[in-house]
Amino acid sequence: MRTHEPNSVGIVAKQYAHFDQPLHLRTGQVLERFTLAYETYGTLNADRSNAILICHALSGDSHVAGYYTNDPDEKPGWWDEAVGPGKMFDTNRYYVICANVIGGCQGSTGPSSPAPDGQPYGLRFPVVTIADMVAAQRLLMDRLGIERLFAVAGGSMGAMQALQWTVDTPERVANCLFLAATPRSSTQNIAFNEIGRQAIYADPRWNRGDYYGADREAPDAGLAVARMVGHITYMSERSLESKFGRTLQGHEQLPYTFLAPEFTVESYLQHQGEKFVQRFDANSYLYITKALDYFDIQEHYPTMADSLRRTSPDTKFLVVSFSSDWLYTAAQAQELVNALHTAARTVRHHEVIAEFGHDSFLVEVETMTHLVGGYLDEQWTLRGASIAAD
Amino acid sequence: MRTHEPNSVGIVAKQYAHFDQPLHLRTGQVLERFTLAYETYGTLNADRSNAILICHALSGDSHVAGYYTNDPDEKPGWWDEAVGPGKMFDTNRYYVICANVIGGCQGSTGPSSPAPDGQPYGLRFPVVTIADMVAAQRLLMDRLGIERLFAVAGGSMGAMQALQWTVDTPERVANCLFLAATPRSSTQNIAFNEIGRQAIYADPRWNRGDYYGADREAPDAGLAVARMVGHITYMSERSLESKFGRTLQGHEQLPYTFLAPEFTVESYLQHQGEKFVQRFDANSYLYITKALDYFDIQEHYPTMADSLRRTSPDTKFLVVSFSSDWLYTAAQAQELVNALHTAARTVRHHEVIAEFGHDSFLVEVETMTHLVGGYLDEQWTLRGASIAAD
Repeated sequence: MRTHEPNSVGIVAKQYAHFDQPLHLRTGQVLERFTLAYETYGTLNADRSNAILICHALSGDSHVAGYYTNDPDEKPGWWDEAVGPGKMFDTNRYYVICANVIGGCQGSTGPSSPAPDGQPYGLRFPVVTIADMVAAQRLLMDRLGIERLFAVAGGSMGAMQALQWTVDTPERVANCLFLAATPRSSTQNIAFNEIGRQAIYADPRWNRGDYYGADREAPDAGLAVARMVGHITYMSERSLESKFGRTLQGHEQLPYTFLAPEFTVESYLQHQGEKFVQRFDANSYLYITKALDYFDIQEHYPTMADSLRRTSPDTKFLVVSFSSDWLYTAAQAQELVNALHTAARTVRHHEVIAEFGHDSFLVEVETMTHLVGGYLDEQWTLRGASIAAD
Repeated sequence: MRTHEPNSVGIVAKQYAHFDQPLHLRTGQVLERFTLAYETYGTLNADRSNAILICHALSGDSHVAGYYTNDPDEKPGWWDEAVGPGKMFDTNRYYVICANVIGGCQGSTGPSSPAPDGQPYGLRFPVVTIADMVAAQRLLMDRLGIERLFAVAGGSMGAMQALQWTVDTPERVANCLFLAATPRSSTQNIAFNEIGRQAIYADPRWNRGDYYGADREAPDAGLAVARMVGHITYMSERSLESKFGRTLQGHEQLPYTFLAPEFTVESYLQHQGEKFVQRFDANSYLYITKALDYFDIQEHYPTMADSLRRTSPDTKFLVVSFSSDWLYTAAQAQELVNALHTAARTVRHHEVIAEFGHDSFLVEVETMTHLVGGYLDEQWTLRGASIAAD
């Protein structure tokens, strides 16, 4: 039997919640029924006050921590270093939940799922927004009997969902942890996503989204290029430089060829693309990047602060940005912080000096444990004191 | 008849120089014969001392300035604002030359040209480097009877060629104008180029480079994506934001669709891709991006300064970088400047505060006219004084 490190959550299982009620989407369309895949770690306490919802990023899923099997080659969940006994999200204290987003391809209903007619949706799947992802999560929280979340947390697109929670259902969020993200996708953010989508559209196998079935081939080539485009935005120039430099892939001297990677960074990118297509659906990539592009917390409001006045004065915000993150820059996070101040909300902001670019929120475990874990400890204690004083 | 602006070079013609002598390439391969397409503007003076070679960037060509025809829809050359009477490169004084690079697709021999067997080279075309581009240009200068260039100038890949000139043929360059470039492609530079190549490789029409002929279709879809990837690196986040923001393409409200561009920036990128494939060959894009990646002026030398000691102490350098250029950063240019100082070479460096990213070298015409035109004036005058003193 595999021995997990002592503070691992150990073996976990993906669960499924089926909803027969319609989900009314922001576009006006309706998803008549849907499923959410989710996982939980730790134990919900008696008064159901210790729940933390973690929202995942573009390519993430419900499997945040632990292992599905005892297979020694099995990799742990995508944020295993953050979730477990004594970790940033301490499962000795908190009940942690993560659900695959609607539109995804890791167990929740998305374009690769069967439509009511039994055939995969493909492009017939309705367009979803960050708000729709959150609306689906809210129904899951209802089902789990969680009225108020101690925290909603996420990095990147996960942070967008966390922020959306605070404006759409203010009374249900005590703390919003907004990590490595932007309150509004910038032009450059949209441009990079569009290039990824164009790479998928350009693959003839994409076939306008109609490629499912045993006799068909998925647009892996296009999706791999999309992933490479995304991947380069997750790393800083400096981290690419220090990780790969101009070192050659298995050669002493430049081979001068198109037929194999020459520099290690080329090999790395190709590997990222190849790995990704084994676990991700191209249509989901299209839908989720669109949701990212649509995201603008200020939409329909004259200022961002006006938009944030929809949040509750009781909700507290932790905003963490990273100096070398050029996908979602410190300036974008600062715009949120400024607007929260203007809206008279309680916010703490850390700009972490880190060299790993956007990935820093996953890589800088020690710093994040200190900042995020410390913040949660503090809020948990304050909350206890407040209850005692009542 | 079309009326050109008074300081246009007017109607110009592409010329061709055919070379039956072999070009010995850095890879050890040989190109037995080749053609260079080139243009000239202004008049070579009696002592052949007023020649300036302009080297073009990745997607450029020999058509720097002026018009090919009187067609009122004809667009001028790619740096028309820089070359003409009274302009940055003043054709009243200088004889300006530009040649399409070897490996290109605008008249010089490249992968789309016929090989000795009469069929297009495709991937049989030998890999070329920046040094090979320069070697071909050198033979053209020989043919034009120009022993010593008053200046070699270029932006982006053009600057790499200009720098290569100074180390490969030090005695033949009086001034090197190195604009918006790097002395060594960084890991991130390579990564972006590799993504562009992967987009081309992923297009089934690419067919390992064998797609020429009236009955075949070129890998336009892949090349368009490659161009979009490149294009995004040419603009700063801020210039994208101020040019497009989150404005919608022909809609009052988000249409929520995959079938048409929603944001104007998407439409812009698609347009850039569509325009590009009409004028560029996908295999040339592969070859030229590889030449960019290979470029490292320090290759085989322990330090960059050691490498630059190959240049002549009589060669002077002007280095111009742009604050918002994140493709070839000010820090990369500074590395060259520092090394030139260490090598005891004469260098002037300007970091221009500009918001247009890498494109600034083309967009900031007034500043560039002042810096580059002023520098050339000054060096021309110094040269005259030196001759008078002899």
